[in-house]
Amino acid sequence: MNSRDGQRTASCTTPILVHNPHLDGLKDDVLYHFSLGTETHDLPAMFGDVKFVCVGGSPWRMKSFIEYIASILGMEDPKAEYPNICAGTDRYAMYKIGPVLSVSHGMGIPSIAIMLHELIKLLHHAHCTDVTIFRIGTSGGIGLEPGTVVVTKQSVDANFLPKFEQVILGKTVMRNTDLDSGLAQELMDCSQELGQFHTHSGNTMCTMDFYEGQARLDGAFCSYTEEDKQEYLRNAQNAGVCNIEMESSVFAAMCKMSGLRAAVVCVTLLDRLKGDQLTGTHDVLNTYQQRPQILVGHYIRKHLTRNK
Amino acid sequence: MNSRDGQRTASCTTPILVHNPHLDGLKDDVLYHFSLGTETHDLPAMFGDVKFVCVGGSPWRMKSFIEYIASILGMEDPKAEYPNICAGTDRYAMYKIGPVLSVSHGMGIPSIAIMLHELIKLLHHAHCTDVTIFRIGTSGGIGLEPGTVVVTKQSVDANFLPKFEQVILGKTVMRNTDLDSGLAQELMDCSQELGQFHTHSGNTMCTMDFYEGQARLDGAFCSYTEEDKQEYLRNAQNAGVCNIEMESSVFAAMCKMSGLRAAVVCVTLLDRLKGDQLTGTHDVLNTYQQRPQILVGHYIRKHLTRNK
Repeated sequence: MNSRDGQRTASCTTPILVHNPHLDGLKDDVLYHFSLGTETHDLPAMFGDVKFVCVGGSPWRMKSFIEYIASILGMEDPKAEYPNICAGTDRYAMYKIGPVLSVSHGMGIPSIAIMLHELIKLLHHAHCTDVTIFRIGTSGGIGLEPGTVVVTKQSVDANFLPKFEQVILGKTVMRNTDLDSGLAQELMDCSQELGQFHTHSGNTMCTMDFYEGQARLDGAFCSYTEEDKQEYLRNAQNAGVCNIEMESSVFAAMCKMSGLRAAVVCVTLLDRLKGDQLTGTHDVLNTYQQRPQILVGHYIRKHLTRNK
Repeated sequence: MNSRDGQRTASCTTPILVHNPHLDGLKDDVLYHFSLGTETHDLPAMFGDVKFVCVGGSPWRMKSFIEYIASILGMEDPKAEYPNICAGTDRYAMYKIGPVLSVSHGMGIPSIAIMLHELIKLLHHAHCTDVTIFRIGTSGGIGLEPGTVVVTKQSVDANFLPKFEQVILGKTVMRNTDLDSGLAQELMDCSQELGQFHTHSGNTMCTMDFYEGQARLDGAFCSYTEEDKQEYLRNAQNAGVCNIEMESSVFAAMCKMSGLRAAVVCVTLLDRLKGDQLTGTHDVLNTYQQRPQILVGHYIRKHLTRNK
């Protein structure tokens, strides 16, 4: 299958691109925040077969995702534990079953960026090809029924612009936040096939802060009014933003640079036009959080079955 | 004791300040990322006696800190487990013994900012007064022997300026990153008393990224040379920067706004002028990471003993 940006054709494989000439000179590459390394671990043997990577904020959710994937792929072993591959650190958690890797990334752009640098290097060292990556997460919706899943068209910043600002040696460099539109469309098709919950395609605003940065009225500090908040969120809505989270822009930028087909699939836990606090019951919020897993799981099963 | 900025005198107590008129109208304040709330938990009973808060990135380290504090305060119960107060979530971990609270914050400014919003509200709801807060962490040093502890004078950004940029409703607001200079001096005195490791007083650069943002040559992407890196780090050094981490600026800004006496105490794991990779053995790095705990523990014990 071809992605619309032409990065791939059916007859060739796409490697993972690192853009760093210095890496060749490293005898050992220590992936510190994973507690893995090229000298201490046989990365091609451990990860060479990876075709799908799923990342999300919470370590618990990423463990439950790998259990879910094992069950729907029929790879479940009732006695099996899924060991945390990064057990030597508590920075991130990582699980694998067959060609599917599941990794936690914590909250916010800096936290996911550290993980992605080391993940991209890991996939590169393992000689992986044709890898598709998903961020599954939670978000605040704008004008959507809580529980709606959003497949991101474009990740935008706090001024609704599709860019990510990376500071390098004190200077700001702009990076593109394009995601793979073909993959996003396939995920929308999967949701139709599933028919279990509503899935929406739209822009996702990525902020540096959960409270003041998302116009919440319930942080420790708030210098604006309810009207200011509503105006800001309406402006976002008019710019095509239908949900807000905290990692998509750097995820899109780094995946694009490294040749990973990438999608962002987040469920909305509340409608920010109606409130700020997450007051849903644990069970309801938990059910919502399973939806991105179900959608991405369906996509992965479909592709693995087709390629058998 | 008076802090030099005159926020406190010996004869009055300092409350925790929230700056948000909307909070008064909330019947229930759900501290979502702590899995705590004003309706579900008796926050004054649980936290009203807190006088010292210690925060750090890693949940494991924050648990080991509370065990260490229990041991040096003689509050250790060999049979005791220190339960995670935030066991209902995996976003942060929180432990408490007597007047000391220990909380993890993950990596990067957005992650610590979410935690601080909820921590400041928690201390406010619990009616805490005269709280001193420490960030204990790890960092990359500039021109310092690995294992050196740095007590931050001022937190500066990637251009070596003492400010934190907070985006509110799409507009950038500058916030001051001053820390309590009296508290920093007391910590330097504590290090002298201990005489166990070298402690340095200097500026700390706070970046949004661990790899490109800190001029590392070993990320997935790197568009600059070793010479560019050295020049950037030398410029930082000339501006008084002696270590680099990823949370101090927003920590300083938010603590100052809420009336918390705050200090940043980070150990350096390597000298960035000599390399980028963390290749120290697990044991050596672990020993280094205990040093900020030992220093802050000494300070807390001294103050609690004096006030008995």
